[in-house]
Amino acid sequence: MSKAREHFRSILARATCTPAAPIFDPLSARIADMLGWEVCKLSGSVGKFANLAVPDSVPMSNMSDLVDLCWRISRVANVCLIADADEGGGNALNIMRTVRELEAAGVSAIEIEDNLVPRRFGGSTSRHSLMISKEEQVGKLRAAAAARRDPTTVIVARTSALTELPLDEALDRIRAYSHTGAEAIMLPGVRRGRADIEAAHQATNLPLCVLGLPLDLVNDSAFLAANRVQIRFLGQPTYGMAVKAIYDSLKHLKDGGAPEKLMDRQASAELLRAVDRTEEFKEWEQEYVRE
Amino acid sequence: MSKAREHFRSILARATCTPAAPIFDPLSARIADMLGWEVCKLSGSVGKFANLAVPDSVPMSNMSDLVDLCWRISRVANVCLIADADEGGGNALNIMRTVRELEAAGVSAIEIEDNLVPRRFGGSTSRHSLMISKEEQVGKLRAAAAARRDPTTVIVARTSALTELPLDEALDRIRAYSHTGAEAIMLPGVRRGRADIEAAHQATNLPLCVLGLPLDLVNDSAFLAANRVQIRFLGQPTYGMAVKAIYDSLKHLKDGGAPEKLMDRQASAELLRAVDRTEEFKEWEQEYVRE
Amino acid sequence: MSKAREHFRSILARATCTPAAPIFDPLSARIADMLGWEVCKLSGSVGKFANLAVPDSVPMSNMSDLVDLCWRISRVANVCLIADADEGGGNALNIMRTVRELEAAGVSAIEIEDNLVPRRFGGSTSRHSLMISKEEQVGKLRAAAAARRDPTTVIVARTSALTELPLDEALDRIRAYSHTGAEAIMLPGVRRGRADIEAAHQATNLPLCVLGLPLDLVNDSAFLAANRVQIRFLGQPTYGMAVKAIYDSLKHLKDGGAPEKLMDRQASAELLRAVDRTEEFKEWEQEYVRE
Amino acid sequence: MSKAREHFRSILARATCTPAAPIFDPLSARIADMLGWEVCKLSGSVGKFANLAVPDSVPMSNMSDLVDLCWRISRVANVCLIADADEGGGNALNIMRTVRELEAAGVSAIEIEDNLVPRRFGGSTSRHSLMISKEEQVGKLRAAAAARRDPTTVIVARTSALTELPLDEALDRIRAYSHTGAEAIMLPGVRRGRADIEAAHQATNLPLCVLGLPLDLVNDSAFLAANRVQIRFLGQPTYGMAVKAIYDSLKHLKDGGAPEKLMDRQASAELLRAVDRTEEFKEWEQEYVRE
Repeated sequence: MSKAREHFRSILARATCTPAAPIFDPLSARIADMLGWEVCKLSGSVGKFANLAVPDSVPMSNMSDLVDLCWRISRVANVCLIADADEGGGNALNIMRTVRELEAAGVSAIEIEDNLVPRRFGGSTSRHSLMISKEEQVGKLRAAAAARRDPTTVIVARTSALTELPLDEALDRIRAYSHTGAEAIMLPGVRRGRADIEAAHQATNLPLCVLGLPLDLVNDSAFLAANRVQIRFLGQPTYGMAVKAIYDSLKHLKDGGAPEKLMDRQASAELLRAVDRTEEFKEWEQEYVRE
Repeated sequence: MSKAREHFRSILARATCTPAAPIFDPLSARIADMLGWEVCKLSGSVGKFANLAVPDSVPMSNMSDLVDLCWRISRVANVCLIADADEGGGNALNIMRTVRELEAAGVSAIEIEDNLVPRRFGGSTSRHSLMISKEEQVGKLRAAAAARRDPTTVIVARTSALTELPLDEALDRIRAYSHTGAEAIMLPGVRRGRADIEAAHQATNLPLCVLGLPLDLVNDSAFLAANRVQIRFLGQPTYGMAVKAIYDSLKHLKDGGAPEKLMDRQASAELLRAVDRTEEFKEWEQEYVRE
Repeated sequence: MSKAREHFRSILARATCTPAAPIFDPLSARIADMLGWEVCKLSGSVGKFANLAVPDSVPMSNMSDLVDLCWRISRVANVCLIADADEGGGNALNIMRTVRELEAAGVSAIEIEDNLVPRRFGGSTSRHSLMISKEEQVGKLRAAAAARRDPTTVIVARTSALTELPLDEALDRIRAYSHTGAEAIMLPGVRRGRADIEAAHQATNLPLCVLGLPLDLVNDSAFLAANRVQIRFLGQPTYGMAVKAIYDSLKHLKDGGAPEKLMDRQASAELLRAVDRTEEFKEWEQEYVRE
Repeated sequence: MSKAREHFRSILARATCTPAAPIFDPLSARIADMLGWEVCKLSGSVGKFANLAVPDSVPMSNMSDLVDLCWRISRVANVCLIADADEGGGNALNIMRTVRELEAAGVSAIEIEDNLVPRRFGGSTSRHSLMISKEEQVGKLRAAAAARRDPTTVIVARTSALTELPLDEALDRIRAYSHTGAEAIMLPGVRRGRADIEAAHQATNLPLCVLGLPLDLVNDSAFLAANRVQIRFLGQPTYGMAVKAIYDSLKHLKDGGAPEKLMDRQASAELLRAVDRTEEFKEWEQEYVRE
């Protein structure tokens, strides 16, 4: 039972909704940790973009890529990490391995989605619009919960059912997923706003994690509390800004611009030292290095 | 003999000085590749900061960290990669392993420095000011050259001798390093400007790689050509800008700012798609996927 | 162009059939190298058993597992490594990544099979009996050949068509695979003995690699040469013997037996020193370590 | 707090001495787990031999090698793993990282020794005969204990002081190490037999782990209990037998011997299936795979 996992459970039980930092690599996770974020969310998309330079729309990456990335994130950031494990790496057998390795890599929560992994780039269909049967997903979520070595690891049932299916079918899925050992429901979009959230909450008592919460809802803490919206995700501005900064810098230099011209867009020396934990290591040295 | 290594050798033989992109992780290397940079330089410092959140001043990382990072960079970026291997991971025995693993990780050139690795955070002394003997370094460079499995891999003798030692001793080192199998000399600073470069060039016929070239020299291509300054390094603005972008983004969100407010500091959708090679994979699919 | 790959090509062009050492991990590859084996074959099955303790019948492992294993094998064994990449990790898009990473991991040849990966444990059906269409496999093999960064890497088209399909269909496949850029055909069984091999050779001019060559054929070098059987695989006695040795040892100790009783089943001190290359490193030290 | 670590603590508190399986890689750990071993010991020597083919006498490997190996062992074997971390990877700063990564890799206990790592192959001096000062080692052990993220991880102070130093100095060290947060003392040899053990036990109340326990002591459970000898290590017969089996097999085949001749030295099909957990996965499939 890790401290991070215990802490994550307390966050799920809290009276308020907690935002998760949208990180994509060890550096962004380290900076989130420095800034006091409690929860970090590693989305599948940006994890693949930043680490493998492959699109999210077809399975160009695998669970070992994700495990390696989570491992490298965990060792520099002492946060509650939610890992987006896509469809879990295959069927319920594969999930057994996925869950155990992600646990070992230090994650607090593992999202598993009920989508069918496309073998081709989609035309009109999106990455998340083809779904496996409710029965198959129930088996996968039960497997995920059973595979845990640490009972405090949280399995999160992610579903775009509210977006892709008729409402009653969607709620039927959410209801079914709630009795598998999964301990939170993740909605990657709420097309109908409040209505979707209220419906989901009526279908399940589990805490909800929501991506793309409309602005008026973000500030309606009474509504969020009443419907157990415990975690909210924030899109990917951090990745987008990192890409722009790197691109602008390398473009400027490639075009023959002087490095000095980029000075005011760079982190201060103080911030850089904070990232690499210079002071923490110095204190450690002061305390423990005797020669 | 890899194409990248052959290309790197042609760059070292060119009439002009080539700048190297200051990258620190797979994402920055991928973007450098997109922008048409031929050479990428992975400095030890930013490699450690970004991937391990540890300082450069004491050996908190090891050669396996560097090998793993180079491997992950090579698989997303088809460039000539110069890896800064610090002091090579120990003595000449360790270098044998370091060189072979870095080669396998796809690098074109490996810098090995003649500094003594500190066990403590320096007070007045810097990371690069304590040096091993010339004889020991000659043994290490000979070992590095002998350890290569691919004769086109370039061993780069890095030395701060020109900054740390009397001029004659410094030149004596450069002369000695030139007869070890190393095929380039890397100067991490040129305190005396033109004088240092001219002296170094008189001491060795090998191509020079220089960090911190003064602005007037950058544009004096005749001088650079006359003294075989073949590669120049550009400091770390790219890392500094990435840190600032990530920090600003996560700070803004942590303080309750809306993600939308960060829109104009993010990469465009088009740039993001270029990073993840969507079009390249689509063409690949068009050509090869038959079901 | 690595020396190992050049050497592998010379083996494929040789007048005689070369056996491949059936290795499964770095230790067995190191010992094969010591014994002078030129070619090592890493089968998918034993690679999974020994490194992941998962069965071969369902996809419990992925291409990153294989890449990591090949990388660890390559760094201790300077041999020509043939990697069994199963179905290549998915469709032709996935193969692009698989081929590039296996190349980077130092393999000389990559086998890609035309089977359909089962999602369930087979009842009567075996791991290799369900096949994808000829057209799909042709696309995958063309993709594999096109994805190479090193033109000397050999793509091997593996097919159980001769065992699973009517003869004319099987030969039609072999013929088609021969025009994709694949440069060898691998037959994981020859049910009809000489007849299968002769038929395959008439369908293709490419070198053949055969598993389970009957004893009378092993010694008929004229027949093998006439039909371009260039490489033969030998089953998995090495893995089977390692498992038995480890099991017997740990069983004996678990039952309270004295370690001393196991003395004569252990390698000599001399053999152990050869495995860890003590002498090689000592010579290296003698030559290069100056302090 | 992992189950394995809790279990390891109960073993240290037990009335009897528990032997540890001498494993060296994932396969041997998996087989130990199958056979019901509770504790596995990964010695530095065989870990390096089997995975890297490098000698133990000079630092050709680093902590990342060990972490990777422990990670791969942990994912296939659900046992209490004692990792021999040699001198911890450097000074007390390095230990901070070593401990955290080994914890993340799932080990239950971490041995840290008070020896000075040689830079050269020893002549008359052995790998363990040069020692750092007591004060430095106390700092390192305190650092190791403080660095833990999981308070149930056990730091083991390993020392050859009883072999290398005068008795009073050796006991003084053991006494000092006992007040650092280390929770067990590891003796890699007991030259004076009972006398050494009794002296060590008088110097410390901590549980002892002993390598090379003389046969008469192994069976004297009253003595072991009276002196808190809680864990005993058994040398490396398992590695030695695996090397011999692999060598014999590859030698036989290289010399043209038929694979069939090796039949009775191989594991049975039943044993092989047990290693790869076929039945466990089948049950899992039965229970959870719904399509």
